[in-house]
Amino acid sequence: MQIYNRHQIAEVVKLDCAALEAVEAGFAALGRAEVEMPPILSMNIAESNGEVDVKTAHIHGWPRFAIKISPGFFDNPSLGLPSLNGLMLLFSAKTGLVDAVLFDEGYLTDIRTALAGAIAAKHLSRTNSQRVAVIGAGVQAELQVAALRLVRDIREVHVYSRDPSKAQAYATRMQDQYALNVKVHDNAASACAQADIVVTTTPAREPVLNWSDLPKGVHVTAMGSDNPHKNELHPTILASADVLVVDRISQSRALGELHHAPALQREVLELGSLISNQQSVRNSDQQITVCDLTGTGVQDTAIANYAARLLEDA
Amino acid sequence: MQIYNRHQIAEVVKLDCAALEAVEAGFAALGRAEVEMPPILSMNIAESNGEVDVKTAHIHGWPRFAIKISPGFFDNPSLGLPSLNGLMLLFSAKTGLVDAVLFDEGYLTDIRTALAGAIAAKHLSRTNSQRVAVIGAGVQAELQVAALRLVRDIREVHVYSRDPSKAQAYATRMQDQYALNVKVHDNAASACAQADIVVTTTPAREPVLNWSDLPKGVHVTAMGSDNPHKNELHPTILASADVLVVDRISQSRALGELHHAPALQREVLELGSLISNQQSVRNSDQQITVCDLTGTGVQDTAIANYAARLLEDA
Repeated sequence: MQIYNRHQIAEVVKLDCAALEAVEAGFAALGRAEVEMPPILSMNIAESNGEVDVKTAHIHGWPRFAIKISPGFFDNPSLGLPSLNGLMLLFSAKTGLVDAVLFDEGYLTDIRTALAGAIAAKHLSRTNSQRVAVIGAGVQAELQVAALRLVRDIREVHVYSRDPSKAQAYATRMQDQYALNVKVHDNAASACAQADIVVTTTPAREPVLNWSDLPKGVHVTAMGSDNPHKNELHPTILASADVLVVDRISQSRALGELHHAPALQREVLELGSLISNQQSVRNSDQQITVCDLTGTGVQDTAIANYAARLLEDA
Repeated sequence: MQIYNRHQIAEVVKLDCAALEAVEAGFAALGRAEVEMPPILSMNIAESNGEVDVKTAHIHGWPRFAIKISPGFFDNPSLGLPSLNGLMLLFSAKTGLVDAVLFDEGYLTDIRTALAGAIAAKHLSRTNSQRVAVIGAGVQAELQVAALRLVRDIREVHVYSRDPSKAQAYATRMQDQYALNVKVHDNAASACAQADIVVTTTPAREPVLNWSDLPKGVHVTAMGSDNPHKNELHPTILASADVLVVDRISQSRALGELHHAPALQREVLELGSLISNQQSVRNSDQQITVCDLTGTGVQDTAIANYAARLLEDA
């Protein structure tokens, strides 16, 4: 059994095309119904403003499956600790023995989450998309844009955050790290006005985007909502979008954007089916496409297998 | 963060009264509704005849919670490996950081499962119980009897197993290890005829005990069933017992004995409530009491906290 720390993992797993292919292969297997993926185990530790989620999936025929444990303790910053944390365990799918423990402290979750956004944009956004609007200014606001550059020629970034100082810090960071020019906006509608792709990356409990904020032809990825209280998109967006995709219908209904639109009656596609069927669902530059990502165990098993292969070869 | 292996853990955690008190405290907290305990996460890996369960619980106010991962891969013996395996991770309930990893390979599960049987017998069996009948001849057939000796003055053991050679090996083992004289029976009814306590420890998919097998005054603990396909007790036993107790009603309904008696209409008590209310439910030597144990996350958090304290002091 091998044990790896965050530093070792981050040395080999990067936000690059190889990692994107690994995660995309996981989604494709899900689309082909070749994945066991039980519902997420979730527990609150109210006395510490904490929660812990456990996700897993097994892709038929793959040598290993991951179990990921993600604690989120939201008073940690007052103790000088990050809120999010966690690790992935890789088990042999033949014997159930532990093969590797990846003490990634949430690094691989950040990566696979950003890559899912890029995969959604690869299959849904206009191929000539260059302008991104980001709502939120945290880690995913950065990584989602970085990942989008793997699939689209991103030239402009527009950001809106409730906290203007965070938006400004984000702009500086993106300039320094990626030489990307970021324009800070004082509302979401303004940030989205010229965008080809919009990504929402917030823990919002009320919609941060309305249908009227969206220009024709845009693709929207909502990656913030991962529990029943969170909600980034006004239900009208789900109802009115030309194409509506989610990572997993059952999860989106339980803890994603679909949870806030229980009466919605329309076609909802799963990202994995799109990939496995090589289905091109955008058929005009005017269509508005929307993808809700809640985060799935199959992404964890895909990125953990990928990471372990690289670590073993390192 | 500390990492401990099975050998280190087995050096300090024994089947003794201190361990029993630790697990009993977990059940009592459950009885007082002071425990978060989400449903078990369960996944099948059909291609390898495998499965994996994840259990967790947090006891309000306790410094750490455990997440236990239990793989069962039932073709492993043909590879020279044990079927059951696993580990427990202990997290700080204040920060969510990993405090300790207990690579116990299922050892702590064996211990806390045996202790739950002893706790059930402590609260339900006649105090003068001396004769135990065991159905099944595996690890729990041994440990359940060993644990019962912590709460009752066990003098006689009767065993029945479908495989007579296993029953004979069991008798030899119990004689060698515990100086207990074991009588081997060729059917369950004969094994139970003189018993004060009956323990079923099988993976049976059809009842191994009928109501007519049970003498007056007996206490029965059924600890084998932990998935919807397993079933040890004929539903008549559940319906006719004077007192019916389970570790967790929701779990017993989903994957224990209650699952096979969906029409049952009667009072069902939880073991934790019995303990926390100091409720004496047996009020005659003639009553037949039954307890179904499916195995709960609170036992895991209780034994893992206990183990970690001993390991840190060792």
